[in-house]
Amino acid sequence: MSAFTSFNPRTGEPGAATFEDASGEQVEAAVAAAERAFTRSRHFEPADMAIVLRAVAEELDALGDRVIETADRETGLGRPRLAGELGRTTGQFRAFAEVCDEGSFVEAVIDHARADVQLARPDLRRMLFPLGPVAVFGASNFPMAFSVPGGDTASALAARCPVVVKAHPSHPETSQLCGDAILRALERTDAPEGMFSLVHGRSKEVGETLVTAPAIRAVGFTGSLRGGRALYDLAARRPDPIPVYAEMGSVNPFFVTERALDARLDSIAEGFVGSMTQGIGQFCTKPGLAFIPEGEHGRRWTELVASKVEQMESACLLNAQIRDALADQVERTRRFPGVELLAGGASASGPGFAYPATLLAVEASAFLAAPELAEEHFGPFGVIVRCESAGQMLEVGRRLRGNLTATVHAEASEAQNVRPLVEELREKVGRLIWNGYPTGVAVTHAMMHGGPYPASTVALHTSVGTAAIKRWLRPVAYQSYPAELLPPALRDGNPLRIMRLVDGEWTRDPTR
Amino acid sequence: MSAFTSFNPRTGEPGAATFEDASGEQVEAAVAAAERAFTRSRHFEPADMAIVLRAVAEELDALGDRVIETADRETGLGRPRLAGELGRTTGQFRAFAEVCDEGSFVEAVIDHARADVQLARPDLRRMLFPLGPVAVFGASNFPMAFSVPGGDTASALAARCPVVVKAHPSHPETSQLCGDAILRALERTDAPEGMFSLVHGRSKEVGETLVTAPAIRAVGFTGSLRGGRALYDLAARRPDPIPVYAEMGSVNPFFVTERALDARLDSIAEGFVGSMTQGIGQFCTKPGLAFIPEGEHGRRWTELVASKVEQMESACLLNAQIRDALADQVERTRRFPGVELLAGGASASGPGFAYPATLLAVEASAFLAAPELAEEHFGPFGVIVRCESAGQMLEVGRRLRGNLTATVHAEASEAQNVRPLVEELREKVGRLIWNGYPTGVAVTHAMMHGGPYPASTVALHTSVGTAAIKRWLRPVAYQSYPAELLPPALRDGNPLRIMRLVDGEWTRDPTR
Repeated sequence: MSAFTSFNPRTGEPGAATFEDASGEQVEAAVAAAERAFTRSRHFEPADMAIVLRAVAEELDALGDRVIETADRETGLGRPRLAGELGRTTGQFRAFAEVCDEGSFVEAVIDHARADVQLARPDLRRMLFPLGPVAVFGASNFPMAFSVPGGDTASALAARCPVVVKAHPSHPETSQLCGDAILRALERTDAPEGMFSLVHGRSKEVGETLVTAPAIRAVGFTGSLRGGRALYDLAARRPDPIPVYAEMGSVNPFFVTERALDARLDSIAEGFVGSMTQGIGQFCTKPGLAFIPEGEHGRRWTELVASKVEQMESACLLNAQIRDALADQVERTRRFPGVELLAGGASASGPGFAYPATLLAVEASAFLAAPELAEEHFGPFGVIVRCESAGQMLEVGRRLRGNLTATVHAEASEAQNVRPLVEELREKVGRLIWNGYPTGVAVTHAMMHGGPYPASTVALHTSVGTAAIKRWLRPVAYQSYPAELLPPALRDGNPLRIMRLVDGEWTRDPTR
Repeated sequence: MSAFTSFNPRTGEPGAATFEDASGEQVEAAVAAAERAFTRSRHFEPADMAIVLRAVAEELDALGDRVIETADRETGLGRPRLAGELGRTTGQFRAFAEVCDEGSFVEAVIDHARADVQLARPDLRRMLFPLGPVAVFGASNFPMAFSVPGGDTASALAARCPVVVKAHPSHPETSQLCGDAILRALERTDAPEGMFSLVHGRSKEVGETLVTAPAIRAVGFTGSLRGGRALYDLAARRPDPIPVYAEMGSVNPFFVTERALDARLDSIAEGFVGSMTQGIGQFCTKPGLAFIPEGEHGRRWTELVASKVEQMESACLLNAQIRDALADQVERTRRFPGVELLAGGASASGPGFAYPATLLAVEASAFLAAPELAEEHFGPFGVIVRCESAGQMLEVGRRLRGNLTATVHAEASEAQNVRPLVEELREKVGRLIWNGYPTGVAVTHAMMHGGPYPASTVALHTSVGTAAIKRWLRPVAYQSYPAELLPPALRDGNPLRIMRLVDGEWTRDPTR
């Protein structure tokens, strides 16, 4: 057993509570309990699950200040941000409860039998069913919303999949508080035992045991490219490969046109710096690369951004590993040919895991020659890339790897001019932002949080928003089944009044 | 270069035309052309693609007898079956043309901006876009419908993804005819050059070059577990892993209750043998394992099935490899403890790749002790497993691996008795069949052709039916974009009149 604590990022002091790596037996017991729970939960109707999800939201809300204080001590993210995050977290559970109550997410499709010679076919009815037990890996940067009670857990439970979460070792106390709250909610709603389990672990063996456990049917992960890829590789080598939905590295390119600078230089500078340093730069969607036109406006914008970054107080990163990784990476990339250090960069003094907000600048030609500059630098860090022309901006856009988001700032009058750039960027990302900032990921139906590799391992799904539930479901078709053996969602008369595709037409009509 | 021909399964004689393995350069050129084509096709509206798909259907129809004769010479499947398959093949292209014209498959979701403090969010609009160039591997057993002009090709083109197909080396002449027809259709509809390419190859290097080509974004495959898994592993090891939708091995378990035997003994025997030997047993959905109750009815059913199988004329398998693999596998499994050979099994004499329809029988307890019996034996082969009780039938169901289908024959009056079995089987398969036979996979909206591993590598998708298009699409969200830069599917006013999820409600209403 390996014991560990969290550390207060502001002071470097260890937390009072000690945690131990879950043993192989403990992980296997959690998975076995999940497997048993699934023999019950797979028979639940979605509306049964909505009750459970709302109870979880209530229990998490009831933690209130206690979890906010604990999370602040373990992450240094500040109470206002963490209070907001708690609201987002319970909001996610409530959003999925609504999805369950509404019920159409099961994608019911009915093709009635036809006897015509040309189109003869049996009665076929398909809908989505839960995959089975799911493993979730909590992220460091959102100790609630992307961690133990995060979107992966909420969406998997909504899909009626039991969940085993591995807590991030950077905030075990917060994780334990949230995990206990989820267990209380499950208990008071008579959910199956084993529907949710929490395991702790600092060593990678805990995660490896979890991902290779035969009963685990899918994995959700938010974190680094290295971590996500390791789990993906492990799952792909199983005797029966399983999907790993890993949301990983992203630099979130940010493009600004000359005319946009002319019209909104100050506000774009302020917005960019705010977004780049929000949560001390520890957002998956942090804009880490700004592409701006050379010339007077670009120079003034760069100076303004640099001075704002320079004036920021040095803040504390989530843990020593993240601080050290960023410091090492900056030390390397700032020395690439043609790179200027505009702000930050020095090792911070003082207690805790502080690192100054840091800004580099480089010509586009030098940027294209140094691919490492386009890799995620997790933390308050950005690179300004000066482009000679719109053509060069298009060229860098074309050469980007996969990202979660891309942002374009341009004036309405030049929409047609930037169309080629937008269309190039569409091939690279999951979300395109116009005259805005990528941080802030709304939990809505239309959200897409994911993107081509290395932004995520499976570009076909989102990890935020109501569509995140689709990751944990698979279709099964019933051919010529009697009504009494069909799930309600597939019965004639549409007893759940959900939207269905019946003989090729979308309808809620119970007579179809 | 390695030269090869097809062989006539009835005579073993080589075909007149000689083909060569595509060189690495040829494969790369096809991929490069696909990549260039995608810079045009990604801007197509789905309705543009419908025109192309209908032209493909026309050109394939125009091949008529010529392709049927060629396919018969290369596969020995017989003209009536191949004429039907041609109709199915062109029907698939027309079905996807309808999907494109209707347009709702892009899953447009719109969440309008809200300014309320609690629910503030930007305008977000998401829809599905094509992934990019796709590699397709043709199957041996359907020289058209699951091969060069098969469902993978049709669905990927419908998604506006350029396709590079590797033809199965068992029917290169048929593949070339079909590939040329597709090219004629693309040319006369002014589709981008490179939108479709055909490469031949008997060596695995051709496929490996294709799957590892950087521009390929996804892979479709129908064939053996070994072949599919090899491609999956290769794609998972890429610097940027890509999805491999492989539809592989399945034994399609077939359960019959005592009461069903009592009521329909003869017809179930006839149906089972017909399904087991359809296409000389070379269907993915061939029922290869029959679970029947011990006792008088079970004995009579077994005798009847055995006599029907014994009386079947020995027929020719698709190629020497398939024949030899089946003969080896039978030689091994028939010697397992407790296994009886009821029909067939001997090496067939005569020219060509003949093998007799073969039937084994075994007690459930011996079956459970020999997992290899539950592996696919591709060809006209089945195992009858005698079960002591409904409880034992449930137990074998619980221990099955993933399959494409499972069939239950039972009387309406005992629906509640078989519910536990049906619910167990639901966890194992993509399609549940009631009182029917699994061969015959209707191309409809509700079809699910796929299932838990090893039936397929990605259980979340189907390779048959209109939903097969979803494999080649990924979501992108537009945040706060001006209307002129939005795709029509996401614009206010719903110019395409598609079904959309607008602010949480499904609607075609243009005023929403």
